[in-house]
Amino acid sequence: MLSPAYLVFVAAFLLALRHPVPAFAARPIIARKPAPSEAAATARWLASQNTWGVLSTISSNLNGAPFGNVVSYSDGVPGKSHGIPYFYLTMLDPTARDALEDERTSFTISEFPLGTCGKIDPENPTCAKLTLTGKLKLVDLQSSEAELAKSALFTKHPEMKDWPKNHHFQIFKLEIENIFLIDWFGGPKPITPSEYLEYGK
Amino acid sequence: MLSPAYLVFVAAFLLALRHPVPAFAARPIIARKPAPSEAAATARWLASQNTWGVLSTISSNLNGAPFGNVVSYSDGVPGKSHGIPYFYLTMLDPTARDALEDERTSFTISEFPLGTCGKIDPENPTCAKLTLTGKLKLVDLQSSEAELAKSALFTKHPEMKDWPKNHHFQIFKLEIENIFLIDWFGGPKPITPSEYLEYGK
Repeated sequence: MLSPAYLVFVAAFLLALRHPVPAFAARPIIARKPAPSEAAATARWLASQNTWGVLSTISSNLNGAPFGNVVSYSDGVPGKSHGIPYFYLTMLDPTARDALEDERTSFTISEFPLGTCGKIDPENPTCAKLTLTGKLKLVDLQSSEAELAKSALFTKHPEMKDWPKNHHFQIFKLEIENIFLIDWFGGPKPITPSEYLEYGK
Repeated sequence: MLSPAYLVFVAAFLLALRHPVPAFAARPIIARKPAPSEAAATARWLASQNTWGVLSTISSNLNGAPFGNVVSYSDGVPGKSHGIPYFYLTMLDPTARDALEDERTSFTISEFPLGTCGKIDPENPTCAKLTLTGKLKLVDLQSSEAELAKSALFTKHPEMKDWPKNHHFQIFKLEIENIFLIDWFGGPKPITPSEYLEYGK
């Protein structure tokens, strides 16, 4: 007869097998920071672990100056990231208005707030930083992509679903054209958007 | 006779009066987050408490796209802030090179990594965010301002003084022309650069 301790062990083992990569997952779950040499993996890890960053647009209010704004984002439901950052922005905010006039945008995230840089300075190249540059596009609220984006956003940012209806929040996504990743000494890592987006597929 | 409850009330009232501006400080030491109505105080508190943010420039590499980069900064030695952010940047990094070609820059910081937003979302307007827009200027390393800036930077970022000499780090400062602060519902607070810089003087 199987002892209760054995059953607990088997249950724990089966649970452990479920993480970090369930057999049915089409996309990787990157639970720990990858090695510095794994540039695409590091970029995707950072994008999947963080929840906020700075979205920079060409400011229509400020004569074309670059304007960075703190925003929340999600690149997928927890454990199932796609690499594309989705945003939930109101037209009351200058960033969304800027993007509708000039869609050139960059999105910048830091490893520092994750706590994994330890006592290393936020500007130290071993504390990873990622800038995705491209075009900020409005996502059609009636599309299936909007459903996926909403699910990605609302699971990582539960309060969003209760934000005021009369602020007319819209879903935006960044179409990535250029990737700037620093995760070690020696300058930015060359990663193409397809290496980044296809990682783990 | 005065009741204990009354004494507690008076003590709490006197403590509340002490914040955010101690009478003896030439410059304010803003230990706690000021009330949302105190816009200049809140902006200065955030600038003095945080140590890193995102510096956005007009990218010369990426055809004029806005490019945000994670950087460390300091607006004064701890407890003696001036509000002007100083940076320590190498020309190996695109941000410094961009600024020498087009000095229009914004610098964005969030309250979120300070931990004082609690469970509030980083994009929630009650979690303060500050964007200072202006011109990123090289500071002459022989000037007295450079001495002040170095002291401000190296006390908050001790490892900077040991960064590689052959990377030729330079000191930059942001000359602030526009301030965008969100610290509550109802849109950005109007603060002029002089209200911000003169706060507590």
